[in-house]
Amino acid sequence: MSREKKNLLSDQDAPSSVNRRGFLSHSALLGLAGAGISLGLTGCKDEAKAATAGSASGAVTKGSHAGGEIMPGQLDEYYHFASGGHSGEVRIIGVPSGRTLRRIPVFNIDPMAGWGITNESKAIIGTNPDGSLKYITGDTHHVHGSYKDGTYDGRWLFVNDKIHSRLARIRMDTMEVDKITQLPNVMGFHGIFPDKRDPVDEKTNYTTRVFCGTEFHTPLPNDGRDLDEPSKWGALFSCVDAETMEVRWQCRIDGNMELVATSYDGKFAAATQYNTENAADLGGMMSAEHDACIFLHVERIEKLVKEGKFTTIGKSKVPVIDGRRAANKDPKTALTCYVPVGKNPHGVNATPDGKYFVCAGKLSPTATVIDLSLVHKWFAGNLPKERDAVVAEPEIGLGPLHTAFDNKGNAYTSLFLDSQVVKWNVEKAIANFKGDKSASFIVDRIDVHYQPGHNFSSMGETKEADGKYLNSGNKFSKDRFLPVGPLHPETEQLFNISGEKMALISDHTAYAEPHDGIIVRRDVVKTRQIYNLDDFPNKVTPENMGVERKGNKVHVRMISQAPMFSIPIIKVKKGDEVTLTLTNHDKVEDLTHGCAIPNYNINFIVNPQETKSVTFKADKPGAYWIYCTHFCHALHLEMRSRFLVEA
Amino acid sequence: MSREKKNLLSDQDAPSSVNRRGFLSHSALLGLAGAGISLGLTGCKDEAKAATAGSASGAVTKGSHAGGEIMPGQLDEYYHFASGGHSGEVRIIGVPSGRTLRRIPVFNIDPMAGWGITNESKAIIGTNPDGSLKYITGDTHHVHGSYKDGTYDGRWLFVNDKIHSRLARIRMDTMEVDKITQLPNVMGFHGIFPDKRDPVDEKTNYTTRVFCGTEFHTPLPNDGRDLDEPSKWGALFSCVDAETMEVRWQCRIDGNMELVATSYDGKFAAATQYNTENAADLGGMMSAEHDACIFLHVERIEKLVKEGKFTTIGKSKVPVIDGRRAANKDPKTALTCYVPVGKNPHGVNATPDGKYFVCAGKLSPTATVIDLSLVHKWFAGNLPKERDAVVAEPEIGLGPLHTAFDNKGNAYTSLFLDSQVVKWNVEKAIANFKGDKSASFIVDRIDVHYQPGHNFSSMGETKEADGKYLNSGNKFSKDRFLPVGPLHPETEQLFNISGEKMALISDHTAYAEPHDGIIVRRDVVKTRQIYNLDDFPNKVTPENMGVERKGNKVHVRMISQAPMFSIPIIKVKKGDEVTLTLTNHDKVEDLTHGCAIPNYNINFIVNPQETKSVTFKADKPGAYWIYCTHFCHALHLEMRSRFLVEA
Repeated sequence: MSREKKNLLSDQDAPSSVNRRGFLSHSALLGLAGAGISLGLTGCKDEAKAATAGSASGAVTKGSHAGGEIMPGQLDEYYHFASGGHSGEVRIIGVPSGRTLRRIPVFNIDPMAGWGITNESKAIIGTNPDGSLKYITGDTHHVHGSYKDGTYDGRWLFVNDKIHSRLARIRMDTMEVDKITQLPNVMGFHGIFPDKRDPVDEKTNYTTRVFCGTEFHTPLPNDGRDLDEPSKWGALFSCVDAETMEVRWQCRIDGNMELVATSYDGKFAAATQYNTENAADLGGMMSAEHDACIFLHVERIEKLVKEGKFTTIGKSKVPVIDGRRAANKDPKTALTCYVPVGKNPHGVNATPDGKYFVCAGKLSPTATVIDLSLVHKWFAGNLPKERDAVVAEPEIGLGPLHTAFDNKGNAYTSLFLDSQVVKWNVEKAIANFKGDKSASFIVDRIDVHYQPGHNFSSMGETKEADGKYLNSGNKFSKDRFLPVGPLHPETEQLFNISGEKMALISDHTAYAEPHDGIIVRRDVVKTRQIYNLDDFPNKVTPENMGVERKGNKVHVRMISQAPMFSIPIIKVKKGDEVTLTLTNHDKVEDLTHGCAIPNYNINFIVNPQETKSVTFKADKPGAYWIYCTHFCHALHLEMRSRFLVEA
Repeated sequence: MSREKKNLLSDQDAPSSVNRRGFLSHSALLGLAGAGISLGLTGCKDEAKAATAGSASGAVTKGSHAGGEIMPGQLDEYYHFASGGHSGEVRIIGVPSGRTLRRIPVFNIDPMAGWGITNESKAIIGTNPDGSLKYITGDTHHVHGSYKDGTYDGRWLFVNDKIHSRLARIRMDTMEVDKITQLPNVMGFHGIFPDKRDPVDEKTNYTTRVFCGTEFHTPLPNDGRDLDEPSKWGALFSCVDAETMEVRWQCRIDGNMELVATSYDGKFAAATQYNTENAADLGGMMSAEHDACIFLHVERIEKLVKEGKFTTIGKSKVPVIDGRRAANKDPKTALTCYVPVGKNPHGVNATPDGKYFVCAGKLSPTATVIDLSLVHKWFAGNLPKERDAVVAEPEIGLGPLHTAFDNKGNAYTSLFLDSQVVKWNVEKAIANFKGDKSASFIVDRIDVHYQPGHNFSSMGETKEADGKYLNSGNKFSKDRFLPVGPLHPETEQLFNISGEKMALISDHTAYAEPHDGIIVRRDVVKTRQIYNLDDFPNKVTPENMGVERKGNKVHVRMISQAPMFSIPIIKVKKGDEVTLTLTNHDKVEDLTHGCAIPNYNINFIVNPQETKSVTFKADKPGAYWIYCTHFCHALHLEMRSRFLVEA
């Protein structure tokens, strides 16, 4: 039995914090033991209670004076852009207050904003031939900002949908989605990361591509073939153009991909692989002693694409390059480098100094530090083995998932099974690995509540990592908050990491699921506070306002201005196809209007100077009061128009 | 010009706080002046900035030491159940922390929970003949709890949908919606309130009915008739059975209805009326000098229903009674009593001592206090005029909307135009109205940020009002938080009201729109933390687990137990109608699983011991990985099954 397996299966062999094991570590161990044989058992409720009670009381003391209080009227220091998991949305949270400043509907439907209801949003989300939405579910995992000079430039956020393999882009000036792209021939699109510099043209020092990792193997193309032969299935790594949001190319690889990272020099995209086995069941996925972190040599791939040396799959026209081992035996021409890392790894993160990628072990109690200069050396044919690029593999605790960084060379890794964050020093871990056993790399440990997934630090995924705040996104809150029924809130815990010891500041709740996020300095974000009428080609003005009929198509062009809609009575006939275009002529910041049509299932808002439209069939005769749903004025309730449908 | 109009149109005549006028009061005045003539103008941005800057800095000082800090690991003292406006949801918020403990999907779709996606939720929401959801929008305004002995009994929450005139009920043990009822022949269902005691059987001292007020007039029935004759249109007050959620009866009234209140003795339901004019345009709705608060004599109405003395409207079988003035001239047999109150009133709230209803003036700078014993006297034929039931009409400030109460006889009214909460003493206002001009009823004023709608106090809508916290739901946050684009967050401001002076504790953000809420002592709420397998008749057990085919209908019965789904491979044929029923056999609290089927637009969760199902057509051949979306275990990512659709 390997060292890793021993640690997972036996508490007494664990390297640290043996006095404290939450119920889930127990449950996980039982689950692992039973994997492939039966459903296994889950942990015992009494244990859970005992574990939580003890930890919670300790945390109160720790959290008391760690700072982070924001007084009423005070502004936060940072924006936290958080993916919302299977809620399908993205959230903007203030740091350190924990206030949710905005929800951004992405793959979900938002009846307040009208997302999924207006014509404009439907065009972005995509529709079926009958005009209905193609999808109403989504599973956002990772949100990342566009880069310039190795730090955020405040232009875009990118976020993935794992259910339907889509990439969405959010404009950071208005905080709204402007593009959604579905990746062809992939399933389980999990990890994403924008590039930080162009791999070909070094002068382009900003984001032009977004890299997308695929977790699940499928038949290629996935049209009903090879259903019973999963060994023939494959997974593709995708590159999307950040500007056009079109898929530039895909690269078929061995194994699967999970989290993605990019190097500051623009040369590499990398992804962790928990299923190098290409297996289709749990036992198979855990069989190999090591899995890998795959590095893609972007420049070489794009050269082949340019030269037309690619294939395509099924109906897709996207160029596909072969990055599998068999086709890439010579490092000097190889497109991919598979660096072996601890069993079933999870996250991969780039250190702010640009030197290393750190992979977290998940089923191994270690992190793996990969030196990027050695990966370059391998691709140049000057490093004997891929594994030689590993410069440290510190043992840090049970269930390592993700790693964040400060500005002092320290790493902060979440430990799912231990319910902890461990702070460790990267250079000391390297020294220790080289043989200096006096190099003590563990700096601090702190309990989180409970079972952390992603953690991330202020500006920690940029060269401007500042070592101020760390957020731990915890999957279980147990009895940490007032009970609200069988579905519990999850927890975003905020830590002050400016000192030697980490200090808990606060527990913020999160609606499932607060998957991943980034913490961005507030000066980076420059929003527009009102729109401009001319942003919208279909804007309604006093000149074109009115009701226009063409056959059975009726176009209503209306203006909202507190406390009135500009057309008091709109009359149509049953069966008409009605398009209502509404422009908000109010100019005062924050003076948003809503527009609901009762029994017609329509609601949306128009922010100051914004235009939106809806199209629907007037199939129900009668009188319907169009009313304002977004409180705007003392006479908000009286703000309504009559929509009359003649039988 | 009346006193009310003068106050609205001229700042210098305002009764109080003349130094401070937010931009909206200005904008409102201009809007009012221009009403019926043109769209009017809105306020100037520079004024807005000046107003906000001044107030915000003041608030920082005020909020510094008002208490209310909750340390990590500490539990909140109260639950705040908040309607979510046109987001269509209800929210549970901790008080005083402001943490959102849970979102409850009601009229919206929630791809995380699977609300609007599972068969069970679709049956509650309602579907079209083709199986699609009837509505995906909603506009929740008021959430109220069921009562026993004049206080909350923790059974149910009720919440309205204004867009489609629906009433939803939430089970407070699981915090999930279990029934939704659409009211017939009404539009703009705005105010709701449960009864507090049976009007007929005095021994029934708990909620058995929910009363629903209608804001908009429509043709009756609304089938295309009378479109051009709004004078023929009408509005109905509805009574829904709290247990069966069926509509018991409706009562046609003069004018419209907005907020609803019920008396502690169970005898009266009442509603404010801003449009006693029955007008169809803004000018008409503001023409009368007084509007009204309508009282309904429930016992008399139900006697008529029992005797079969009712009509019906259109296809609806619900008994309709005539509560209009013309049919109710003799107080001794009248079903309704129209008490004149200030112009275009907004809220109506019952004092915790059961004696009074307080109406807020909106376009009148006054509140109106109505003595319920005098309303009883009127119905007995012993009070000459309806207006004689008014025992006070204190002048309190501009734009009064809603009133909350403490346990010391004080009222707290939100002032939309003044952006303030004013604290005033009810008995002193009555003494003043009687002629004791030395009775000074204003106790305190405090700025809120900005333009408050509803406010509500801890247990303030029960006999157990405790005077501890007051929440002000503010419609505009302006520059109070970090900018997030043209759509601003709204604000829930929390005040400590235990002292003579109100003290601001904190600003919490709210996603539009935090309409109304109640603050409930935590001991009242008794939730179930896990389900019971037997709660679900369609539960999956090891005995019935498997894939069953009947013709082209395939039923997949599967179990989830971390880290596996119980069926690794499911094979169907293109064109099959597939029902997937999933039971979560994990018993550990908080161990929820998710279930997504890529490209099939399916996601939902199953909480511990819960069963849910989905039905869909297998129309896309290929291999699809069903995966767990709710982080459950160290091997969560590996928790997946193959769903194979043969071409």
